[in-house]
Amino acid sequence: MKLFCEELRAPKNPKLDKINPDETFKISRTKAEARLEYNKNLLGHLGYKLYAEGKRSVLIVLQAMDTAGKDGVIRHVLTGLNPQGVKTTSFKVPTPIEAAHDFLWRVHMATPAVGEIGVFNRSHYEDVLVQRVRKIVPEKVWKQRYNQINEFEELLAENRTTIVKFFLHISKGEQAKRIRDRIKDDEKNWKFSKSDLEERKLWEDYMAAYETALDKCNADHAPWYIIPSNKKWFRNLATSEILVETLTKMDPKIPDPIPDLDKIKVE
Amino acid sequence: MKLFCEELRAPKNPKLDKINPDETFKISRTKAEARLEYNKNLLGHLGYKLYAEGKRSVLIVLQAMDTAGKDGVIRHVLTGLNPQGVKTTSFKVPTPIEAAHDFLWRVHMATPAVGEIGVFNRSHYEDVLVQRVRKIVPEKVWKQRYNQINEFEELLAENRTTIVKFFLHISKGEQAKRIRDRIKDDEKNWKFSKSDLEERKLWEDYMAAYETALDKCNADHAPWYIIPSNKKWFRNLATSEILVETLTKMDPKIPDPIPDLDKIKVE
Repeated sequence: MKLFCEELRAPKNPKLDKINPDETFKISRTKAEARLEYNKNLLGHLGYKLYAEGKRSVLIVLQAMDTAGKDGVIRHVLTGLNPQGVKTTSFKVPTPIEAAHDFLWRVHMATPAVGEIGVFNRSHYEDVLVQRVRKIVPEKVWKQRYNQINEFEELLAENRTTIVKFFLHISKGEQAKRIRDRIKDDEKNWKFSKSDLEERKLWEDYMAAYETALDKCNADHAPWYIIPSNKKWFRNLATSEILVETLTKMDPKIPDPIPDLDKIKVE
Repeated sequence: MKLFCEELRAPKNPKLDKINPDETFKISRTKAEARLEYNKNLLGHLGYKLYAEGKRSVLIVLQAMDTAGKDGVIRHVLTGLNPQGVKTTSFKVPTPIEAAHDFLWRVHMATPAVGEIGVFNRSHYEDVLVQRVRKIVPEKVWKQRYNQINEFEELLAENRTTIVKFFLHISKGEQAKRIRDRIKDDEKNWKFSKSDLEERKLWEDYMAAYETALDKCNADHAPWYIIPSNKKWFRNLATSEILVETLTKMDPKIPDPIPDLDKIKVE
C-alpha cells in the first residue's frame, strides 16, 4: 500500500488537469476504511513518541479549493491524536495587525514547538494563491514570495521541523456537487457564503496559481503531495498513509529514564 | 446519573481529607465506560455546534497533584473532539519573558477564542499553589492573587467564556502506587523526575494550598469541581459528565444559513 505515497508526490511542473482527482489506485473503499483506522491508531502512538521525545516537530500544511476536505482531513484523520500534542491554526483573512507585518509573521508565530504536530488549515500559500488571483498585491510582490517561502521552509526544516504539504485535488464538477449537498444539509449550510461561488468562477486562475506553487516550492525537505480527493475515503487514506510514513521515518524515541531508577524509593 | 455533578461541586471551605478520593457513587465500571463513550460522542457534537455558532468559548482548567490524571483526562475524555476547535495549553515553569510580566499575562494570551474549547493543563492556580508552598513569592504577593484571579475569571465570564475547573483528587497512597507503576513502565518512566518525590514530601502543604484556592475562587461563573480520582474510570466519567452538562446548558446553535439559500444556482 505504501507504494502510492511516492506516486502522490507532486512532480516537476505539474499539470493539474492531467492528474485524475478520482484516482484510487484500485484500492477498495472497505479496505481503505479499515486501513484508515489502523493508521489512526499508529499515528496516535507515533504522536505520543514524538511528544515524549520532545526534540522535533511536524508541520502539516493543508491547501485546497473550498469543499475539497481540509476540515475533513482534520476531523477524520487527526481527531484521534492527543489534543495536547496537536496545534491547529486556521489562517483566515489577515487581521489589521497581521496585515501590518510581512506575510510570514503570523505564520511563524503559529509553527509547532518541539514534540508538537502543527496543522495549518490554509497557510502562507494563500499569499501566492488568493492574493495573486484576486490581485490583492502586485505581481512583483507575489512573485518574490515563492523564494521567501522556500527560505522560510528551509529555516524550519533545518531547525527540527519535518514539513508535509497536502494539496487536496478535486474536480470543478465535484465541487459543484458538494456545494449543492452543503446547501441542502441543515448541519452544514451555515457554512455557505455567496463568496464561495465567486471563488469558483476563478477556478482556472486558481489552478494556474496552484501549479506554480506546487512547482516552485517543492523541496525534498518540504514536499507537496497532490491528493486525489473526489473520493473522501481515498483522501483520508492517502493523507493518513503519508503521515504514517513520514513519522515512521522520523522514528521518534521515548527518552531514557533517569539513571538508577530501580533504586528509587517512593515513601 | 447527572445527579452527581452537583455533588462534586466544591463546597464552601472544603476539607480534602474528608472528601473520599475513592468515591464512585455506586456506579459500576462497565456502566461508566459505556457512558463515557456516549459522552465523548455527545461532546464531539456539542463542540461542533459551539464552533459553528462562533459566539462563545469554554475554558477547562485542570489542576491536580502529579499522577492524578491531568494528561489522562485530556487523552481519554477530550481526544474525540475535533482538534480544530480545541486549544490545549500546558503551563510549565515560567520562561524569562513570562516571568518578566504579571502572572496572568501568559494565561490571558492562552484563553480560547469564540467557538473554541480551551484546556489548561495546570493554570494560573499554580501561582497560588507551587509559588505559595515553595515560597517562591512572599505571602503578601500570593495572598493578593486570589482576588486577582477572581477578577480575571469574572472578566472572562462576562465576555462569553464559560469556565469549568477540575481538581483531580487522589490520595497520597494512590500517588505512591502510581509513581511505582510509572517507574516500572517503559513507555512512561521517562516522565519520572526526582523532583516528583520532593513535591510529594510537601503533600500536606499542597492540600492546604488547594483548600484555600478551592474556597476563595469558586464563584458560580467559575466553579470548581472536586473529582474523586483514585479510580481513573470514575474520574473520566465524572469530568465527561460535567462537560456534557455544561455544554448542554450553553445550548450552542448552528447559525442560520444565508437568506434565499434555495434560490442559489451552482454553475
